[in-house]
Amino acid sequence: MSHRKPVVVYENPTIDEALDAVKAAVSGQKTLVVAGNCWVDYSGRASSSLEPGERILMVKEDHSVLVHRPTGYEPVNWQPSGCIFRTRKKDDTLVVGAIRRKPREVLTVFFDKIYMLSVLNIVDKGEFSLYASEEDMQKAILVQPSVVEEGLRPITYEKKVEPGFIDVYGIDKDGKMVVIEIKRRKAGREAALQLAKYVESLKKTVNREVRGMLVAPEIAKGVQKLLLTFGLDFRRLDPKKCTEILRKAETKKLADFF
Amino acid sequence: MSHRKPVVVYENPTIDEALDAVKAAVSGQKTLVVAGNCWVDYSGRASSSLEPGERILMVKEDHSVLVHRPTGYEPVNWQPSGCIFRTRKKDDTLVVGAIRRKPREVLTVFFDKIYMLSVLNIVDKGEFSLYASEEDMQKAILVQPSVVEEGLRPITYEKKVEPGFIDVYGIDKDGKMVVIEIKRRKAGREAALQLAKYVESLKKTVNREVRGMLVAPEIAKGVQKLLLTFGLDFRRLDPKKCTEILRKAETKKLADFF
Repeated sequence: MSHRKPVVVYENPTIDEALDAVKAAVSGQKTLVVAGNCWVDYSGRASSSLEPGERILMVKEDHSVLVHRPTGYEPVNWQPSGCIFRTRKKDDTLVVGAIRRKPREVLTVFFDKIYMLSVLNIVDKGEFSLYASEEDMQKAILVQPSVVEEGLRPITYEKKVEPGFIDVYGIDKDGKMVVIEIKRRKAGREAALQLAKYVESLKKTVNREVRGMLVAPEIAKGVQKLLLTFGLDFRRLDPKKCTEILRKAETKKLADFF
Repeated sequence: MSHRKPVVVYENPTIDEALDAVKAAVSGQKTLVVAGNCWVDYSGRASSSLEPGERILMVKEDHSVLVHRPTGYEPVNWQPSGCIFRTRKKDDTLVVGAIRRKPREVLTVFFDKIYMLSVLNIVDKGEFSLYASEEDMQKAILVQPSVVEEGLRPITYEKKVEPGFIDVYGIDKDGKMVVIEIKRRKAGREAALQLAKYVESLKKTVNREVRGMLVAPEIAKGVQKLLLTFGLDFRRLDPKKCTEILRKAETKKLADFF
């Protein structure tokens, strides 16, 4: 029999009540949502300050932290998972300090008024599946080539080369030619052999060194060895990451437009 | 006299109560936080599905949408601002559809159990100030050169050239040399003249075409004209963006390590 209470809500708690609730939620690795009037300081690789205003603070069970304003899909301040917390009351404000050790980054949220505080004891084991197309992956590499290799400069794409198509064709940081074959699922022997053929065909045409790179979210057992035999590289690329790159690039373009 | 009620909280509402509250919040441009058991479909430039689990849905007053799992600083699903909503009840589930028109992207969240629903009527006019160093901006350009120009390939940085230092030095997509001078605040006449000197000095040394690029969050009145006179470019770069690039790059590195 389960005695789990998924949510405990405090409406307009006092600073002392909020302090106790935050401390218990953090030490018990619950998810916390706090809405109220706050200001925020951050210092780490840069520093920032956010003047008073009404916002939502979220502390997750893995001790990641988000501060959300009432507009915009991006948090105004955040910390990745694994923060250490220092929660206290000072001059009638609730001070929630989230400290990241390495690199040292300190996010401090000061609340002088809290409208709602929810402690969530929620369970989420559902799987997330993303189905990006190979074309999306290709576009993402063109938008942000560093996702596959630092210093890569794409030259062209979907280049017709016997016996088929090459997804992206570029120059690496040392000036070598790079041929990229993209697979949206686990790459198997067939993909490796296809790429090997492309590279051989291209070497003859251009009469210079050509690197082959297989890009996929996963590689099938034994295929890594096969790639090594042919002198080809494997780069892991998550289709989800590609979709994020494209959406952010597009949202940015839209934002620049207005 | 203000009659604003900053937060209205529903604990364990029925699907019908939740439906009414969501509809009112969305049409009244309030911020909405819903915690409960849900599953999510997304279709747009890719498609995704998230199996049932307990999560937090946030709809902001600008109609941006976030779905947060109890772990991880990034949302599992999201839509940028400006969504159109289609909220309904179907087979005892609350269906919240957030539609983006162009490009068409549809995010649909299905709740069969709601633990907490908060409608927030919050006001946030506080200014956010970020103080990134010029070194941070330089590093961000090295990590992701496309933030200043698509196809730019950094070659070196902090190159000593008479009469001073060049922040980043690279090759553009047409193979031309590019010299980048970074300012963390509004760039004035002095920065433009400094860059012009750098470019002149470098041209003599390398005996080839050299492009000069001034990178800053803002440019002072009249300086754009001065840059034009010298044949130099200006690229707007927000220090906040640089900090995000560095933090994401680092978090990714950490994640790859574990």
